[in-house]
Amino acid sequence: MRRDAGKGEMGMRKVSRIQEVRSFLREASGRSIGLVPTMGYLHEGHLSLLRRSRKENDVTAVSLFVNPTQFGPGEDLEAYPRDLERDLALLEREGADLVFAPRPEELYFPDASTWVEETRLASGLCGASRPGHFRGVCTVVLKLFQIVGPTRAYFGEKDYQQLQVIRRMTRDLNVPTEVVGCPLVREPDGLALSSRNTYLSPEERASALRLSRCIALAREAARGGQRDARSLRETARRHLEEDPRIRVDYLELVHPETLEPLETLDGEGRLILAAWVGKTRLLDNGTLCPEAGR
Amino acid sequence: MRRDAGKGEMGMRKVSRIQEVRSFLREASGRSIGLVPTMGYLHEGHLSLLRRSRKENDVTAVSLFVNPTQFGPGEDLEAYPRDLERDLALLEREGADLVFAPRPEELYFPDASTWVEETRLASGLCGASRPGHFRGVCTVVLKLFQIVGPTRAYFGEKDYQQLQVIRRMTRDLNVPTEVVGCPLVREPDGLALSSRNTYLSPEERASALRLSRCIALAREAARGGQRDARSLRETARRHLEEDPRIRVDYLELVHPETLEPLETLDGEGRLILAAWVGKTRLLDNGTLCPEAGR
Repeated sequence: MRRDAGKGEMGMRKVSRIQEVRSFLREASGRSIGLVPTMGYLHEGHLSLLRRSRKENDVTAVSLFVNPTQFGPGEDLEAYPRDLERDLALLEREGADLVFAPRPEELYFPDASTWVEETRLASGLCGASRPGHFRGVCTVVLKLFQIVGPTRAYFGEKDYQQLQVIRRMTRDLNVPTEVVGCPLVREPDGLALSSRNTYLSPEERASALRLSRCIALAREAARGGQRDARSLRETARRHLEEDPRIRVDYLELVHPETLEPLETLDGEGRLILAAWVGKTRLLDNGTLCPEAGR
Repeated sequence: MRRDAGKGEMGMRKVSRIQEVRSFLREASGRSIGLVPTMGYLHEGHLSLLRRSRKENDVTAVSLFVNPTQFGPGEDLEAYPRDLERDLALLEREGADLVFAPRPEELYFPDASTWVEETRLASGLCGASRPGHFRGVCTVVLKLFQIVGPTRAYFGEKDYQQLQVIRRMTRDLNVPTEVVGCPLVREPDGLALSSRNTYLSPEERASALRLSRCIALAREAARGGQRDARSLRETARRHLEEDPRIRVDYLELVHPETLEPLETLDGEGRLILAAWVGKTRLLDNGTLCPEAGR
């Protein structure tokens, strides 16, 4: 699919200014551009997005930006893990063409006053726990879309609500970018990959396995014929609450596109949860099907 | 400037679907595109934008769309004047290349839930009188920018606050479009051109002249040395209030970019007003300078 692998072979370009992105991509005119927006501290989940983008596009750009406007007061903006050198080495090895790692001042004017807000899918779940979070996400993603002009943009299903919110925002605003959702990547023992896993102590790391396990338990119950959403949720929730290190933030069974809570599992449903493991808030989610799980 | 006048000579293309806009403009790849967003019922003000766009771009697109999301409850959405046949004839005569006249369902999904909001410049003046108005404006303008991908977009200074809000929105969201503001166009007797002038009775039409006159009076006072903003505002307001057909909605002297109210006319200021003439709400504005008016 990469009609011109020239850039990849000539090595990766790393820039921090919007104008540099635009001039780099001006030369890509007529070729397809894939964008992988990240907050850095890359793991295999991010790299799976990059590989998918490289397969499907002529040029792949990756952004590394810990976006301040999606963090609330008291959240982990300052503590969020960063390792630019390691990220760049990984991206170079994986064949990214362009890396955009701006400083916050490059993306936000001091008197910035414009926001992009999705008001329906973003209102529950993480949106309820983190007011303003998705406003920050939508705003920065739209900005990156305007800067890069991607043909396709890649987001992981680990942040499932974020993916659906961005899909909706992109549709509603007629942004000419295809939003591609990619499967969640897990450790061999089932833990969903997240940059925030680095916060976990060994004991918390063991407890955190319950997040994926509780989804598997609900999936088994669904496969066994249980279609009542409350019962499926309780199956999952009980497994989390058995562990005193875990505090559930939310746990819902929702429609996979509208994110509306389900009462009965008639078609595919998404079990989606956020839980504190010690001082670390982690997300997980997975598909439940009435007859056969996936 | 029009390197390829082929399209103009081949006649104007009129479309109502987003996909048709995209395929028409795909062929314009590499050429500059000017966009003139309008609500139709065109007058010389709109045509001045079109002529400017034709001078500065290879291809000029005009949109005709009475955007429902920028009208509040009880406003004149239904009554807003429309005359598509006449508009198309004018645009053809003036050499527009593409006219995009969508139905509301083409631009808004029934479950649309994403909004673009500018929160600073849009909060006062018309934003205070018409809650939600600029949210609707910003959203539809961003959508049109995504659909057309214009190099430049043209807006009249008659809607001065709108122009500044769109400038700010475009800057904040890194939209790669240059926003071009064009001078207000007036009737020979001074009335600012507006599609809503068609609502005026002959008596109201005569009263409406006070809008431009009151700005001229304030400008004369400024030229005469008056720098106190309150006094300048009162000069203008008194002239409006002498006429019982007129009710002032707002009248402010503001900084031309930030739209912050001025206390003293130190540099250039913008006198900006909205007033009801009978049942018609009209806008006007103009520059005041401490020494010499323009």
